Amino acid sequence: MAQQPSKGLADVVAAATALSDIDGRIGRLSYRGYDINQLAGAATFEEIAYLLQRGAAPSRAELARYHAEITAGRELGALVSADLPTIAHRQEPMEALRTLVSLASADDPDKDSNAPDANLRKGARLTAQQPVLVAAYEAARNGRTVPDADPGLSLAGNFLLQVTGRRPAERSAEILDACLVLHADHTMNASTFAARVCAATLSDMHSAVVAALGTLKGPLHGGANEQVMRTLEEIAKNAQDDPVEAAGSEVTARLGRGEKIMGFGHRVYKVEDPRARFLRAMAAELAEAAGDDTYYRMSRRIEATVLAEKGLYPNVDFFAATVYHYLGIPTDLFTPVFSVSRMAGWTAHVIEQHADNRLIRPDSEYIGESGRAWVPLDAR
Amino acid sequence: MAQQPSKGLADVVAAATALSDIDGRIGRLSYRGYDINQLAGAATFEEIAYLLQRGAAPSRAELARYHAEITAGRELGALVSADLPTIAHRQEPMEALRTLVSLASADDPDKDSNAPDANLRKGARLTAQQPVLVAAYEAARNGRTVPDADPGLSLAGNFLLQVTGRRPAERSAEILDACLVLHADHTMNASTFAARVCAATLSDMHSAVVAALGTLKGPLHGGANEQVMRTLEEIAKNAQDDPVEAAGSEVTARLGRGEKIMGFGHRVYKVEDPRARFLRAMAAELAEAAGDDTYYRMSRRIEATVLAEKGLYPNVDFFAATVYHYLGIPTDLFTPVFSVSRMAGWTAHVIEQHADNRLIRPDSEYIGESGRAWVPLDAR
Repeated sequence: MAQQPSKGLADVVAAATALSDIDGRIGRLSYRGYDINQLAGAATFEEIAYLLQRGAAPSRAELARYHAEITAGRELGALVSADLPTIAHRQEPMEALRTLVSLASADDPDKDSNAPDANLRKGARLTAQQPVLVAAYEAARNGRTVPDADPGLSLAGNFLLQVTGRRPAERSAEILDACLVLHADHTMNASTFAARVCAATLSDMHSAVVAALGTLKGPLHGGANEQVMRTLEEIAKNAQDDPVEAAGSEVTARLGRGEKIMGFGHRVYKVEDPRARFLRAMAAELAEAAGDDTYYRMSRRIEATVLAEKGLYPNVDFFAATVYHYLGIPTDLFTPVFSVSRMAGWTAHVIEQHADNRLIRPDSEYIGESGRAWVPLDAR
Repeated sequence: MAQQPSKGLADVVAAATALSDIDGRIGRLSYRGYDINQLAGAATFEEIAYLLQRGAAPSRAELARYHAEITAGRELGALVSADLPTIAHRQEPMEALRTLVSLASADDPDKDSNAPDANLRKGARLTAQQPVLVAAYEAARNGRTVPDADPGLSLAGNFLLQVTGRRPAERSAEILDACLVLHADHTMNASTFAARVCAATLSDMHSAVVAALGTLKGPLHGGANEQVMRTLEEIAKNAQDDPVEAAGSEVTARLGRGEKIMGFGHRVYKVEDPRARFLRAMAAELAEAAGDDTYYRMSRRIEATVLAEKGLYPNVDFFAATVYHYLGIPTDLFTPVFSVSRMAGWTAHVIEQHADNRLIRPDSEYIGESGRAWVPLDAR
C-alpha cells in the first residue's frame, strides 16, 4: 500500500548516503563525517572532490595522482570543441552547459561503463571539465581565447584565470576555493536527487549530470544566486538616495506584497545555514579589499530585514552572490559556478547509486476523473 | 521527522496527478479516467497527446488546430540543424537525442517561460519534434536526407515514412500509432519523475525533458526494449537447431544462473500489464504479415518459460521489441521510439507540475561515519 503523500517529498527519506549529512536543528553540515566548519578554508576543493568521490581524504601521493587526472581532464573533447562556438552564441549559460556536458560523453572513453573504476575516472574528468566549459563558453561569447591553465594553480585559481582572462590574486583564488568546498555536496537537494533518479535506471554518469544541470538551472535551486545579484543590482540602480536604505525599504515592500526574497530560508535548516556564515565573512573581506562595500552593506540590511520580518536566515545563495560579484564573475555565470562545485557531489552520488542500485520509481496519487467512456472523434 | 526509508521510493507517493492511474492488482491503466483498453486502436496518438497535455479529448476543430501546431513544430531549429550532422556521427541514439533536445531550446520562442500557454505550445512542439529528431538522426548517420512529411499521414505514419525513408503500409502506421498510445504515459515512472523533479525547481520544459531522456536511456527503464531484441537476435544467431527451442532452453539456463530476463515484471503491476496484451496481438499480426514469425514464436516461448519458472508476466517492453522489429525500425532506435511516445506524458507532467508547484526535495538517511577530525594534508 502507498504511504501517505508528502508534497515535494519533504521529510521523506529517498536514499541512504555516506556522502553528506545535515542536522537542520543545529545547523550542521558534514561531508563524510567531517564538519564543514573544519573544511572551509582548510581543505582544497580537489581534496574534497576526492573525499566525496573516493571515500577518504587523499594522501599526498593520491592527491598528486588525482591532480594529474584533473589536469588531463581539462582537455575538451572534439565534439564539444566543434560545436561550442555556435552554442555559446545561441544558448544562455546553464542551457549551454546542459548541452555541452551532453556532447562531452561522445569523447569520454568510459562513457558506456558504469563500472566502479570507470565511474571514478569519469567523476574526475567531469570535475575537471566543468570549470573549463564555463570559461570556454564565456570566452567564446566574448570572442576571445581561453588562457592555458597554469599547473601551479588550484582548480579554483585556474577557473578564475580562464573565466576572467586575468591571473587572479592569490587570496581571490583561496576564497573561490573555499566557496567550491562549501557548495560541493548537500544531501538530497533537487539536482542531486535528479541525478540519482537518472542513474538508478542504470543510465550513465553523463546523463545523470545533464539531468542535474537542468535541475540546478531552476530559480528555486541553483538559479537563486543569480536572482539575489539581480535584486541587488536592480535596487542599487533604482535607489534615489542611499542604496542601503533603499534595500531595506524595498525588501519590506516586497514582503508586504507577499513576494519571496531569493536567498532566504531552506527546507532542511531551521537555524542559520553553516555555509552562510563563511560566505558572509568572505563577502565582507572582498568588499573591503574592493574599496566599495555597497553590495555587502545592502546585503546585510536585507538580511536584517528578512530576519526581523519573516524570521528567515540567509541560505548558501545569498552571500555567494556578492562574493562572486567581487571576484569579477559575470552575474549570469553564478549558477554555472555552483555547478563547478556541485559536480563533485553529483558524480559522487552517481558512484554511490551505481554501487548499490535500486530503481527509484515512486507512486503517485491519482486525483483525476475515473471510469470515463471514450467517445470517438466523429461523435464528439 | 523523516519517515521510514523506502529504498527506491517503492510505494511512496511522490506527487498527485490527474494524468494517468494504474491499478496494479487488476492490471488497469487509464489516461485521465479513460481505460487504456478503450483507447488502444481507437484513439490516435495526437488525440491522446492532446488529452494528456490539455485535459480533455479534443473536438474535431481543436484537433485540427493541434494538428497545425504539430505540423509547424516539425521544423527543426537552426542550432539543431547546424550541429546534427556531427552529433549523428559521434553519439549513440539516446545520447544524441539528449543533446539534440537540449540544443533545441535555443530556437524555441517560449523557452524562457513556464506560463501555462507557453508550456502548452512547447508541449506540442516537443511532441512534434521528437519523431523528426529520431528520423533526422537515422538519416544523417546513413548519409541520406529525410523525406518531407505528408500532411495526410498521422504522426506515427510520418515517423515511419521519415525514419525508414519509405512510405509505410496503412496498417503499419495504425499499429505504430497504437504503440505510441500505449506508451504515452505511465504515472511516476523514473523518467517522468526525473522530469518533475527538474521542473519543480521552476526550471524549464526542455531541461525537464532532457533529464527524462537521460533517465529513459537506462536499461532498467526505456533501454529494456532494445535489450529484449538483442536477446532474441543473439539466441537466434547462436541456435544450433530450432530457435524457438533454443529460446526456451537459453532462458531456463539464464534463470538458473540467477540472471534477469529483460522485459518481465514491473514494480506496480502484480498481474499482466494491460499494454502487453495489445502488443502481443500486434506482434502476432505483423509476424504473420511478414511471412516469418520466428521472433514472435521465440517471444511466446520465452514468455511461457518466464511465467512457469518465475511467475513473471511480460511488461510493455517485451512485445514492443518484436513489433518495432517487424515495422522495420533499427534495433538501436527502439528506445528513441519509446521517447517519441512518452514525450506526450513528460510534457503533460511538466505542465501539471508547474501549475501547482512545490520543490521536490526529499531527505536522505546518513549511513557514513560521524564526528571525524580533519587532518591537514601535511600531517596525513
